[in-house]
Amino acid sequence: MLSAAVIGASGYTGGELLRLLHGHPELRVVLATADTQAGSPVADLYPSLAAAYPDLSYSPFALNDPVLNGADVAFLCLPHGASQAIVPELVTRVRWIVDLAADFRLRDASLYPSWYREAHTSPELLDRFQYGLPELYRDQIKQANLVAAPGCYVTAATLALAPLLAAGALEPTGIVVDAASGVSGAGRPSKPTTTFCTVDEDFTAYGLLDHRHTPEIEQNLTAAAGRPAEVLFTPHLAPMNRGILATCYARPADGATPSTESLLQRLHDAYDGEPFVRVSERSPSTKATLGSNAAHLTARFDPRTGWVVVITALDNLVKGASGQAIQCANLMAGLDETTGLPTVGLYP
Amino acid sequence: MLSAAVIGASGYTGGELLRLLHGHPELRVVLATADTQAGSPVADLYPSLAAAYPDLSYSPFALNDPVLNGADVAFLCLPHGASQAIVPELVTRVRWIVDLAADFRLRDASLYPSWYREAHTSPELLDRFQYGLPELYRDQIKQANLVAAPGCYVTAATLALAPLLAAGALEPTGIVVDAASGVSGAGRPSKPTTTFCTVDEDFTAYGLLDHRHTPEIEQNLTAAAGRPAEVLFTPHLAPMNRGILATCYARPADGATPSTESLLQRLHDAYDGEPFVRVSERSPSTKATLGSNAAHLTARFDPRTGWVVVITALDNLVKGASGQAIQCANLMAGLDETTGLPTVGLYP
Amino acid sequence: MLSAAVIGASGYTGGELLRLLHGHPELRVVLATADTQAGSPVADLYPSLAAAYPDLSYSPFALNDPVLNGADVAFLCLPHGASQAIVPELVTRVRWIVDLAADFRLRDASLYPSWYREAHTSPELLDRFQYGLPELYRDQIKQANLVAAPGCYVTAATLALAPLLAAGALEPTGIVVDAASGVSGAGRPSKPTTTFCTVDEDFTAYGLLDHRHTPEIEQNLTAAAGRPAEVLFTPHLAPMNRGILATCYARPADGATPSTESLLQRLHDAYDGEPFVRVSERSPSTKATLGSNAAHLTARFDPRTGWVVVITALDNLVKGASGQAIQCANLMAGLDETTGLPTVGLYP
Amino acid sequence: MLSAAVIGASGYTGGELLRLLHGHPELRVVLATADTQAGSPVADLYPSLAAAYPDLSYSPFALNDPVLNGADVAFLCLPHGASQAIVPELVTRVRWIVDLAADFRLRDASLYPSWYREAHTSPELLDRFQYGLPELYRDQIKQANLVAAPGCYVTAATLALAPLLAAGALEPTGIVVDAASGVSGAGRPSKPTTTFCTVDEDFTAYGLLDHRHTPEIEQNLTAAAGRPAEVLFTPHLAPMNRGILATCYARPADGATPSTESLLQRLHDAYDGEPFVRVSERSPSTKATLGSNAAHLTARFDPRTGWVVVITALDNLVKGASGQAIQCANLMAGLDETTGLPTVGLYP
Repeated sequence: MLSAAVIGASGYTGGELLRLLHGHPELRVVLATADTQAGSPVADLYPSLAAAYPDLSYSPFALNDPVLNGADVAFLCLPHGASQAIVPELVTRVRWIVDLAADFRLRDASLYPSWYREAHTSPELLDRFQYGLPELYRDQIKQANLVAAPGCYVTAATLALAPLLAAGALEPTGIVVDAASGVSGAGRPSKPTTTFCTVDEDFTAYGLLDHRHTPEIEQNLTAAAGRPAEVLFTPHLAPMNRGILATCYARPADGATPSTESLLQRLHDAYDGEPFVRVSERSPSTKATLGSNAAHLTARFDPRTGWVVVITALDNLVKGASGQAIQCANLMAGLDETTGLPTVGLYP
Repeated sequence: MLSAAVIGASGYTGGELLRLLHGHPELRVVLATADTQAGSPVADLYPSLAAAYPDLSYSPFALNDPVLNGADVAFLCLPHGASQAIVPELVTRVRWIVDLAADFRLRDASLYPSWYREAHTSPELLDRFQYGLPELYRDQIKQANLVAAPGCYVTAATLALAPLLAAGALEPTGIVVDAASGVSGAGRPSKPTTTFCTVDEDFTAYGLLDHRHTPEIEQNLTAAAGRPAEVLFTPHLAPMNRGILATCYARPADGATPSTESLLQRLHDAYDGEPFVRVSERSPSTKATLGSNAAHLTARFDPRTGWVVVITALDNLVKGASGQAIQCANLMAGLDETTGLPTVGLYP
Repeated sequence: MLSAAVIGASGYTGGELLRLLHGHPELRVVLATADTQAGSPVADLYPSLAAAYPDLSYSPFALNDPVLNGADVAFLCLPHGASQAIVPELVTRVRWIVDLAADFRLRDASLYPSWYREAHTSPELLDRFQYGLPELYRDQIKQANLVAAPGCYVTAATLALAPLLAAGALEPTGIVVDAASGVSGAGRPSKPTTTFCTVDEDFTAYGLLDHRHTPEIEQNLTAAAGRPAEVLFTPHLAPMNRGILATCYARPADGATPSTESLLQRLHDAYDGEPFVRVSERSPSTKATLGSNAAHLTARFDPRTGWVVVITALDNLVKGASGQAIQCANLMAGLDETTGLPTVGLYP
Repeated sequence: MLSAAVIGASGYTGGELLRLLHGHPELRVVLATADTQAGSPVADLYPSLAAAYPDLSYSPFALNDPVLNGADVAFLCLPHGASQAIVPELVTRVRWIVDLAADFRLRDASLYPSWYREAHTSPELLDRFQYGLPELYRDQIKQANLVAAPGCYVTAATLALAPLLAAGALEPTGIVVDAASGVSGAGRPSKPTTTFCTVDEDFTAYGLLDHRHTPEIEQNLTAAAGRPAEVLFTPHLAPMNRGILATCYARPADGATPSTESLLQRLHDAYDGEPFVRVSERSPSTKATLGSNAAHLTARFDPRTGWVVVITALDNLVKGASGQAIQCANLMAGLDETTGLPTVGLYP
């Protein structure tokens, strides 16, 4: 049995880690930190976890906390920027780290000031983190000690487009990723934009042109295509708790003769051996992935307009966050990749 | 006071006409037909209308109904195909007709078999119907006796793109319209795809590549551009009662040097005199239009990827259906165009 | 045309007053105060109101504001306690005041410290305020200059039970009022208990045993019964924007021989002449009242268990707040009571 | 490994059994019948189950189906009345049967015609079925071959009140159970009362005075009290997928001197050893039980009005249906009662 510390365990991705790790036979939670909740029982903030963690209380974060230093894995569920501040020291104390924030996802440190409005404070560590998308980088994750797990939008867009770009089927430029997210993607703290009465019965776009996850999508698609990818990403907020649907539009590569069948076949080739990715002709529904680590995909080619459409649905808190982080930790720790991860969704 | 007949008054667009006409000082409902509800009080199906129509019951539809024949305006709120069957006779009996279905919206009769899977049964009448989008065809509607009012998706996409195409600012091909609709767009009858437990907490795309409203969007944009427009349209279903958000992607025309400011300026030029269309820098929210005849728009140009994004929000049952139909009827009848139409939304 | 000042116009009841007054032919908004939003356009906070108030900005509240002093009616939409602070001075400056808070609703000043945890600072004014439930106190409201309009839960419970108590049909003690409210009842400011992810897909009771509106319900029912009424009130939070449903349980009075028919008849007798209250055998639905000033009621007698059940549905922001306030203002100003008030709900 | 047949596996309780049994280490699904879906893959109806049951298709129900006859446990998830028709034969073929319908829940056959409007067709079997609420009848269930598992409302009300009645703390008459349910309680088939646009943003009572589960609640409370219990039960429909909240009102027994503390203590005494029931001072939230087999309870005594309030929250499809059925099957089969049952909810 390995021990896990959840750093930043009061937010939704931290809470989801606690939920999933409760069902994990090889990873046991020994520490849940949350400075704002320090001292209070986890069950007070999350009554849903009361039976699982009757005696666990939030701790303040402290680098020299002996429980933290004795942990095998640390999952970092902190706001952007906070991981950078603690990782330089933490890497010397914990065997495996999975960061769920964006702090170590971009290879090019210069993208941080332009997209995140602040320079990276530990750029020398960027190269030491492995990007944690198992479907693309499984072998590298197995060798890694430090993993930066991608988030919901990027996972959805990358799973949709990377195999088709890698196969040379699509142009890497002119891509549009139009996506909708449930509200949990905005985090647990209350704010005017996510009160029930603001969000319920509303659908709206946000982050027009400048959403921070754009360069990460481009980084992944560039790697897949072998040449620079360019993406316009438009996220929307949908009145639901969880779920991401990414509807991606791209052009066939010059000389390609695509069809819906050939696109689906390439996705099947890429994913039919994957435990968590499912390709079908059916239009994916976020609800079918609720609570599971699954990603559902489909694709179409429209001969009339020449557009390729690829759609991914997943649960933003599982395959788009905490489930993916556990999947990476499983690989790093030499466990079966699927250990403790649900493939079945809650329905309805 | 003019008299109005609502044909097909048990569905949501019919019910919405009854709601709006109750507040209309010049149009009085004299007939509400619904074969499946014939004989039962309107208030039984719509308790929300009980105070407005305490004594109104649904009638069966009959061409020779004297009440119908004495009506000044007939609003047709029927399933696709049903208007074609009755209009050839109805035109001889009622002074003004507004059809809310797609039966008389396409100029090119050959599009019906390819997109609606059945030939038009009265193609000779297509030319006699005026397309009912007042912001584009106000003068023609004033002269018309027969109007085909456009629906929610098409109104949203057309308002977004037509002025920019007419100004030569956009390429008319390669356009993507990615839209989300509330569930009332699917109509009142119960079906497996619209039960609460299917839709709630779900977001999904439907009608991939072949949604029937595609050729109508293309017809409008072609007219605006003066050359053939080509659109890929992807509708999604969002877990809310009402509302359409259309996020439209297009390329600047060759030689154009667009900017967000210039795009917004063109939209302001087109719409600042309009009573129901509002342009702003703010990302439109469907909820801000709830229950009103308003359409809210914004636009962006992304110099990084070269994409133009234009977004429209509106209430699918008001500006996207029954409000628009009344707006047309007002124009046809020589009334002030805004008579009886709310500009203020219900919030929250 | 009379002029109206909305004091505290950034919250939901203030916003709803702006919405409703826009359609009021005799009352014109001349002032909207909101200290936290002072200087910013109303349309920025409420895009739904943009077309109605293109030039209105929030003002800071100032007793000597000449616009306020020139207003005919002031509607106070302030947090509990704030009205007490300004009313002693305001009564000398404005002709009619309608307070939407609880500050002047209770006749017995000693109830404030026990239920609101603070003593009333202007108890001498309590007698000068008329309780603003037109269905019970129409004539008195017509004579009043100062009205304390009741809120959503109290209106629902009082409309349900007062006529039956007044008729001697029910025991005034042992009453249970079990009610559910939409989230807008909790106000606009964001807080952990009303974020979307907390509330959506949840149903929970709150304010167990000690909700502040309990003594106000008892005050009304005591007045109706002519002897002390005693009520246990349990509110619940339902995942919806608007709406109150109050399910009220009471015992028949000693010697009464009730039946569902006789209960319904008494309610019909009380309300059939009322413009906004509708009695029927149908189980009331909050949705049927959405956006309207309507209250829908039904009643049952269960011969098996001896319980009487009376149910009211209404829109908490209209008949439960801002619509009721306008109804009172209409009466005070000698206007037709229904002026500017919708009787028709938005559906779906 | 034991084998399980799910009879009526296309509905929500059947689908939930498939979800839960996928995670059960000792029970394997060998048959899923659904006459209306016969031949089609389970994954077509429930894409959420695709990864769990890639090769399972619905079978038509046939008593002589060898797979059925070889099953260790049959779970019956059929509409009321259908179990009665097949159980007389099925009992000779399958070792353990858990019926999730009401067919074998009532001891008194005469209650069926009065509450279910049809006589029971196999009254002789009523005595052979053990009522399947493990918290009350654990030892009897262990000995049983035939179990009738109670549903959501009854489980919630019984868990709330039975221990207090058994302890003599409450009067068994004059009880009010006011409850709200998510929409999945109405089943999967589409109907006008459960379309999204009917239910969303609505709260309404239904089944006034005559809901079928009333006599079952009374049966359980009578057994607990040792004398006839009498309950008025009012269910409501809330706009959410899952969840039951039962708010129960009762009077202290004559001579009892209750307090909130003593009520909570009695509930703690009854349930602190239970794996799935959790008592606390906190007002229970349905959302905290989502997807888990948990029931959360609290209680209050109001010295002012003399009422006792006890509240239960649970997931209607898990502890209120399929989870409870598996809990019973575990007991019958000699397995650990908690095998395969989640105690942790999905949040948010």
